[in-house]
Amino acid sequence: MIHRLKKPVFRTLSFFLTIISLLPSSQESRRIPFPGKHSRLHKPPNTLLTTYETRYFQQTLDHFSFNDRPKFPQRYLINTHHWSGPSRMGPIFLYCGNEGDIEWFAANSGFVWELAPRFGAMVIFPEHRYYGKSMPYGSKDEAYKNASTLAHLTAEQALADYAVLITDLKRNLSAEASPVILFGGSYGGMLAAWMRLKYPHIAIGALASSAPVLQFEDIVTLETYYNIVSNDFRVCKYSVSLISFQSTSCFDTIKKSWDVISSLGRKVNGLDHLAKTFHLCGKLRSSDDLYNWLESAYSYLAMVDYPYPSEYEMPLPAHPIKEVCKAIDDSADGTNVLDRIFKGVSVYYNYTGKADCFEVDEDLDGMDGWDWQACTEMVMPMSSDKNSSMFPEWAFNYTSYAEECLNEFGVTPRPTWITTEFGGHDYKSVLKTFGSNIIFSNGLLDPWSGGSVLENISDSVVALVTEKGAHHLDLRGATADDPDWLVAQRASEVKLIKGWIDDYYTTKKAVFKM
Amino acid sequence: MIHRLKKPVFRTLSFFLTIISLLPSSQESRRIPFPGKHSRLHKPPNTLLTTYETRYFQQTLDHFSFNDRPKFPQRYLINTHHWSGPSRMGPIFLYCGNEGDIEWFAANSGFVWELAPRFGAMVIFPEHRYYGKSMPYGSKDEAYKNASTLAHLTAEQALADYAVLITDLKRNLSAEASPVILFGGSYGGMLAAWMRLKYPHIAIGALASSAPVLQFEDIVTLETYYNIVSNDFRVCKYSVSLISFQSTSCFDTIKKSWDVISSLGRKVNGLDHLAKTFHLCGKLRSSDDLYNWLESAYSYLAMVDYPYPSEYEMPLPAHPIKEVCKAIDDSADGTNVLDRIFKGVSVYYNYTGKADCFEVDEDLDGMDGWDWQACTEMVMPMSSDKNSSMFPEWAFNYTSYAEECLNEFGVTPRPTWITTEFGGHDYKSVLKTFGSNIIFSNGLLDPWSGGSVLENISDSVVALVTEKGAHHLDLRGATADDPDWLVAQRASEVKLIKGWIDDYYTTKKAVFKM
Repeated sequence: MIHRLKKPVFRTLSFFLTIISLLPSSQESRRIPFPGKHSRLHKPPNTLLTTYETRYFQQTLDHFSFNDRPKFPQRYLINTHHWSGPSRMGPIFLYCGNEGDIEWFAANSGFVWELAPRFGAMVIFPEHRYYGKSMPYGSKDEAYKNASTLAHLTAEQALADYAVLITDLKRNLSAEASPVILFGGSYGGMLAAWMRLKYPHIAIGALASSAPVLQFEDIVTLETYYNIVSNDFRVCKYSVSLISFQSTSCFDTIKKSWDVISSLGRKVNGLDHLAKTFHLCGKLRSSDDLYNWLESAYSYLAMVDYPYPSEYEMPLPAHPIKEVCKAIDDSADGTNVLDRIFKGVSVYYNYTGKADCFEVDEDLDGMDGWDWQACTEMVMPMSSDKNSSMFPEWAFNYTSYAEECLNEFGVTPRPTWITTEFGGHDYKSVLKTFGSNIIFSNGLLDPWSGGSVLENISDSVVALVTEKGAHHLDLRGATADDPDWLVAQRASEVKLIKGWIDDYYTTKKAVFKM
Repeated sequence: MIHRLKKPVFRTLSFFLTIISLLPSSQESRRIPFPGKHSRLHKPPNTLLTTYETRYFQQTLDHFSFNDRPKFPQRYLINTHHWSGPSRMGPIFLYCGNEGDIEWFAANSGFVWELAPRFGAMVIFPEHRYYGKSMPYGSKDEAYKNASTLAHLTAEQALADYAVLITDLKRNLSAEASPVILFGGSYGGMLAAWMRLKYPHIAIGALASSAPVLQFEDIVTLETYYNIVSNDFRVCKYSVSLISFQSTSCFDTIKKSWDVISSLGRKVNGLDHLAKTFHLCGKLRSSDDLYNWLESAYSYLAMVDYPYPSEYEMPLPAHPIKEVCKAIDDSADGTNVLDRIFKGVSVYYNYTGKADCFEVDEDLDGMDGWDWQACTEMVMPMSSDKNSSMFPEWAFNYTSYAEECLNEFGVTPRPTWITTEFGGHDYKSVLKTFGSNIIFSNGLLDPWSGGSVLENISDSVVALVTEKGAHHLDLRGATADDPDWLVAQRASEVKLIKGWIDDYYTTKKAVFKM
């Protein structure tokens, strides 16, 4: 079976979804649309827990070279309500915007907002260039026109944006002495960690939540991501009437399903049959589309396998994987594989039960910025292991990856650049010797945790790992349903951040009063 | 009197000469040609003290963006003769090439070559892009054509060049574990310090000799540079027949001379008179040219006020400023100011006595890369104080500086970018808390020392300051004439570097045997 490659996609909401594709057949490029698109029930983002002012900063497009490209308006959200001000060196909490609309990240990073009053901190959420409303060249259409206009969509430029913006802001407020703490989740977490390493004169510490900074080259095993997704489905337990069950068929049924879909798809009227089984709104053009739709669901479920009901993009129950497995297991004996699978993924795509049918075909609103990033710097190789993964077997093939990028964007990736610029190899001794004040927080249910730092490196480069956590859950606002381990994780983060700030004030011969 | 601004010029040989201009009248741009050009006696660079292989690396032109600019051949010099090899994690000594032909720096950085056998180190001297033979677009003519082709001549791109080159080299040699130590003098020293801060995963330490990393914005007082030059002339002592003299008239005579030149220049036949007095080969077009010629001499003299005879670009006696002052003082009573000045600068421009006449007009071999750098990132503001400086009074004027850059290159400087990218403000607490393994070595006779780090910051960010040292003397090869303080300085450097390497091996659980 020939499998097809897809590029890693960082999702709006910083669910960044991987992307080898697990599909047979064609080598043509295809991006996984974000999950909300699959369902007719698509909720708008949560309203904000807190208020902010929206501002724009005239930002340099190319920080590292001098050409005549025009500046662009970078959007940022700011709240100075709780700030203790420049004379008291009030801290500044800066969330490193990821690949999406910054309002989404602001709405889903309640932890940052909740923390601000306790520290007398200003909060600022700058938007990542080429996303949301921070478009060079006047519009997304112009910015995404071709490789030349997209050229400056890179992580280094984004970090420099944040550095220039915060430096300017501090200067204007005479707040040069205010310490800056970085926050970020997923790709934003990578940016936070990298910014702490690259701009120690600008930020004194970083909370990098679910940041797979090691998911490059061969630093971690290429099978990690899909193994974690698969394991989430293999070990899931659920209760019925207070009796605990270990799902027996979930992993096996999913693993079996790919061949069933594949062979059915090749039969006469097979695609129609599949479309009917999965309640698709329209025709199924190829079984690839269905594969993607399913793979997408499983990967996201692993990321958002939260302990309480959530509504990031899809309304979901608490521990959604349990519910999926329960649905797969629950079917009457003799129910065929695909019906079980449909019942399972309906938990994800149709938890409210209001969707009548589903769209699996791709109709993205134009090009996705993450595709460009994946085709340039963010080459995060992934494979799927024959035995330990519930997905079809797949070996990462850089050559075809690069070919696809050349075809799609006219650009050749630089697969070793990120580690050259930011490090990665030998990270333990490098961070131990030369790094400080970084928290790498991860939940082990999250498939991206496999590409992050999971061990304490030193007193001040710390890994906070939760067995039952998923994708940057710690950054969300507190809820009444938070389990103890999550409360404890956040408390550790607060303590560490407070320590950084205290140390900073001590160095500054100032007294910090929280 | 209206004074004119010139942009700081980093000289071939990394004598980087500042450049406010101290001239009255016009605002038009003008660059100080490097000193050898002023004299008909122009020696070729010294032959190398050691041997190396010359290689070329196909280098990415724009590391931080993805466009279709062609790669360029980056030259580097390499010597692996003494290297203890990858299995023993033999160190790699990397000199960060400055603004000029890398062979010059290799020839004048004997310390690096001499150290290599003691450490079993490989030596590599990569050339800075847009200098020497490392030209983008096939030739200097093409590379220097306009702002668009020059766009990528920046320090960040140069650092990324070094990072990519050394990473590739190590990978090819399976020497990933070999520690890299950075060296650099002057602008190259700035690059070494910055690279240590930005690429701690690539280089474990840096010797930054005479690196004015603080000569930006208002971090140091703007008068520092010219005050140090002036002070070198004010305090100079010399001996005649074993009797020690404190020069009394040197500083005063020079300070007086500007007005004399200025008023003579305005008289009928005044320029001819000046040309005759200073033995110029051709006509003097304006007294500005003479000002530059003199200012250039004094600034260089301050930089190369070495304790033994040297031949960087000009053959010079030991302690050349003493000799200049002696010549100025020595003149018979009644000798007029300009004749004294001529006698003085002849020590600089014509120490061998073989030059019949001098060229003061500018006829550079086309554009100088440092001018571009000064007009983009390297805005190093300088003023000349009315009292403490022997040069005419001058207050740095950013507006006219920027205008000049716009006129000359069509580019607007970014005067706060370097400190945003690399830090500088509040450097003590930043380096203390987050920096490590950097030596800032400086000689206090060197006018650039005023813009460098002159105090120990921590156990591992160390300032080695020599009262009688000049511009990166420590990087030169050892000579029989080295004074004790220089020998001691180099010994301290060796000890610190050895400490870094030992620590690295300890971290690596390896044993280091020198």
